[in-house]
Amino acid sequence: MDYVTVKYIGKKPKLKNPILIEGLPGIGNVGKLAVEHLIDNINAVKFAEVYSKDFPPQVFINTDGTIELVNNEFYYRKAKKKNQRDIILLTGDYQGLSSQGQYELVEKILDLAEEFGVKEMFTLGGYGLGHEIAEPKVLCATTDKQLVKTMKKYGAVFKKNEPGGGIVGASGLLLGLGKLRGMQGTCFMGETPGYLVDPKSAKAVLKILMKITNVNVSLSELEKKAKEIEHIAHQLKEMETLSKEKPEELKYIG
Amino acid sequence: MDYVTVKYIGKKPKLKNPILIEGLPGIGNVGKLAVEHLIDNINAVKFAEVYSKDFPPQVFINTDGTIELVNNEFYYRKAKKKNQRDIILLTGDYQGLSSQGQYELVEKILDLAEEFGVKEMFTLGGYGLGHEIAEPKVLCATTDKQLVKTMKKYGAVFKKNEPGGGIVGASGLLLGLGKLRGMQGTCFMGETPGYLVDPKSAKAVLKILMKITNVNVSLSELEKKAKEIEHIAHQLKEMETLSKEKPEELKYIG
Amino acid sequence: MDYVTVKYIGKKPKLKNPILIEGLPGIGNVGKLAVEHLIDNINAVKFAEVYSKDFPPQVFINTDGTIELVNNEFYYRKAKKKNQRDIILLTGDYQGLSSQGQYELVEKILDLAEEFGVKEMFTLGGYGLGHEIAEPKVLCATTDKQLVKTMKKYGAVFKKNEPGGGIVGASGLLLGLGKLRGMQGTCFMGETPGYLVDPKSAKAVLKILMKITNVNVSLSELEKKAKEIEHIAHQLKEMETLSKEKPEELKYIG
Amino acid sequence: MDYVTVKYIGKKPKLKNPILIEGLPGIGNVGKLAVEHLIDNINAVKFAEVYSKDFPPQVFINTDGTIELVNNEFYYRKAKKKNQRDIILLTGDYQGLSSQGQYELVEKILDLAEEFGVKEMFTLGGYGLGHEIAEPKVLCATTDKQLVKTMKKYGAVFKKNEPGGGIVGASGLLLGLGKLRGMQGTCFMGETPGYLVDPKSAKAVLKILMKITNVNVSLSELEKKAKEIEHIAHQLKEMETLSKEKPEELKYIG
Repeated sequence: MDYVTVKYIGKKPKLKNPILIEGLPGIGNVGKLAVEHLIDNINAVKFAEVYSKDFPPQVFINTDGTIELVNNEFYYRKAKKKNQRDIILLTGDYQGLSSQGQYELVEKILDLAEEFGVKEMFTLGGYGLGHEIAEPKVLCATTDKQLVKTMKKYGAVFKKNEPGGGIVGASGLLLGLGKLRGMQGTCFMGETPGYLVDPKSAKAVLKILMKITNVNVSLSELEKKAKEIEHIAHQLKEMETLSKEKPEELKYIG
Repeated sequence: MDYVTVKYIGKKPKLKNPILIEGLPGIGNVGKLAVEHLIDNINAVKFAEVYSKDFPPQVFINTDGTIELVNNEFYYRKAKKKNQRDIILLTGDYQGLSSQGQYELVEKILDLAEEFGVKEMFTLGGYGLGHEIAEPKVLCATTDKQLVKTMKKYGAVFKKNEPGGGIVGASGLLLGLGKLRGMQGTCFMGETPGYLVDPKSAKAVLKILMKITNVNVSLSELEKKAKEIEHIAHQLKEMETLSKEKPEELKYIG
Repeated sequence: MDYVTVKYIGKKPKLKNPILIEGLPGIGNVGKLAVEHLIDNINAVKFAEVYSKDFPPQVFINTDGTIELVNNEFYYRKAKKKNQRDIILLTGDYQGLSSQGQYELVEKILDLAEEFGVKEMFTLGGYGLGHEIAEPKVLCATTDKQLVKTMKKYGAVFKKNEPGGGIVGASGLLLGLGKLRGMQGTCFMGETPGYLVDPKSAKAVLKILMKITNVNVSLSELEKKAKEIEHIAHQLKEMETLSKEKPEELKYIG
Repeated sequence: MDYVTVKYIGKKPKLKNPILIEGLPGIGNVGKLAVEHLIDNINAVKFAEVYSKDFPPQVFINTDGTIELVNNEFYYRKAKKKNQRDIILLTGDYQGLSSQGQYELVEKILDLAEEFGVKEMFTLGGYGLGHEIAEPKVLCATTDKQLVKTMKKYGAVFKKNEPGGGIVGASGLLLGLGKLRGMQGTCFMGETPGYLVDPKSAKAVLKILMKITNVNVSLSELEKKAKEIEHIAHQLKEMETLSKEKPEELKYIG
């Protein structure tokens, strides 16, 4: 096995001018949630797995007791309508652990993408605000000036100097290394408190992506998950408040 | 020396369709204890040592004052009866320190295993519960759905979503990377508090392994060690309790 | 992409016996501030970018919404007068993260420098004192005994056993590895408290460098920045003092 | 530059059946102190420097203002009497920072040693006790059973299970990796509290080494340093005691 290895499952698909949509684990798991939701709802087909010596030395256990080496996975979905395009989707268990591991992984992903003719990418992630937010906006950054204008039309927001620290991880690196290869790309960052997984932010990102790709999927599953998370967040808050109030209450008892 | 190097001791043994049993250091040292007990009690013969640049830069000192570079060791034991199979056993001082080191080490182990015709592996480890347990069960995870059923017959347990974090380290990676090579494997995880080395858990794992391999060894030595550990655990607990109680006692003195 | 990769922008410049001036991020950001100020004020032209797998996996976002992979950048400026020399300037977002990454990066920088005929280098950095300083001196260390004398004439200071820990990072390594290649070099270290970015120290370093290179630029922009930083430092101090005094004040209230 | 690079200074010396004596930084700096003392007192000649990408990216500054890349250094001293042997001495600024770096460094050292015909090594270090000790003993561990007996005759001590953790670092690894190449070696470990550099322990180690090599040097310089360190240790203790006693004293004042 190489440092990063691609293993194809069955025949390589034949794709026409596909776009790549990436959503790996990250803040609020926004990107991963969004891409997984898409995969489940457009009947995308897994066609390749990526292994890396920079992933943790770990297997996960499936519900039937079989093990699965940690990996990243490629899916595809061919266009069904004239206004759609073929899509490659990327998600996975982990990003690389080290700087070098991240670069090697992203280079291998771009190699595969180029092999299938990808010229345009959408990378999805979260933008951690550190506070709650009623209606998460979706920030964007792109490889090309013109793309910023286009994405604004679709509802994405561009704020000068945000995120101030740039984009760290695969979502940024795919654009950065892709740009060096002459590929175009846009990173969508859903605003998120960043404390818990955030299906609401994933939904906001998907809404824009659906307009761009003309692929429509029901978002009700994400809405349901968002309510569950909201419930958990509410409970956590109550517990915190209670534990802070206790000393006060005890005074009155005393 | 390569990143990972195998050094054979004497002639390479000729083995027929051997199984590989692995037990390296880990939680409760369950796997290492089990494999070392097996090696000692079936007169297994050491035939190879593995060195890695990802092991600590360290030598151990033997009781005669000579040094030994930290390593992993391969032993073999040929079948003595018709219902037995040739066995390769693997134990050692350390697992790899880094992710990459673990992957390189396990790949080298699998190379050696394949060279000797291994198609089936048993990897042994502990499953840390964080609390004491009267009768440790042995959980299993496998490369193949069918194997789960087989292992249940031998007394292993499969619990959905346990261990939740999957299997980290060589025991998991051997199965994960082995599966990619078409090898079959089962990981047995003896339940253990995980605070101290756990011969009781190692015994539970060996009981199942003995049924599978038709190799029977006395477990009395492990039982003796288990009692010693129990005694130590008891003493540690008492010391802890005493140190907690002292302030109380002092009140009465005051 | 190699571990460290140089990407030229447009045609390679033809330079005659150029000197290299390096200023990468470091304590007080003294070196980076100085070289960036020089680049802006002598109309230096960017001709190459350096990428490294040991830089963070990150892109920065430009003010127009486009992304830029983190990198180091080479600029050049051809001599305008008889008493000047061609100059290559190096600055960037990061130094290497790991030891090996630093060595690989600096080796690649030296490869490029040698290709353009560089035989003499000036590396700029800060010397952290941990306390405030009215008039920062500029310490120096060199590859050759004779150079120490020369630099003293230009106003640099050499104090025995300072900095006691030597020079850590690219500024030191360029000299150390360059010396092995027969290159000459001087490191200028502007004294700095080291708490904040320090344009005053950068100014002190540039003053000496201007004498050596016969290149004169206005330092007013750095002076302006220095006053801003002084203001911020003053405010931070006040806040600290206030927060320490509060308990005292409260006593009087009570 | 390779990961580890040897740079010869002048002509390679011609040595006859030399022994290698290593003393790199470590606990109490015992090994480094001993070898540096030897180098200074037998007029050993530097003939090679070793650089490694796993050393810190750092230069030290000489007293004349010139820089020196961090390295390890080889010295030699030819036999002056019939009962002496040619000697190669190794000391340096650092050991490797990472596991892999240590292995690569030691392999390169052994390559050089073998090139000069070294078949026997002495590696020097400290054995940290964590408490003060009146008369430090010198423990030993060897590649060969027979050598233990020999070294006992020279005054070295062998205690079963000490050091319990084996030998970590270059002193151990030289023996461990050397043994795999068929080289013989002994590690001498001077007992040391381990808090400060320990010339007294270095002296104890040298006393034995002098008997073995029939090379006699004055140890008065080490004795002088030992007294200085003793003085510092005493002062540190007093300061500690005072700071502990103060609350007691204050009671009396109150």
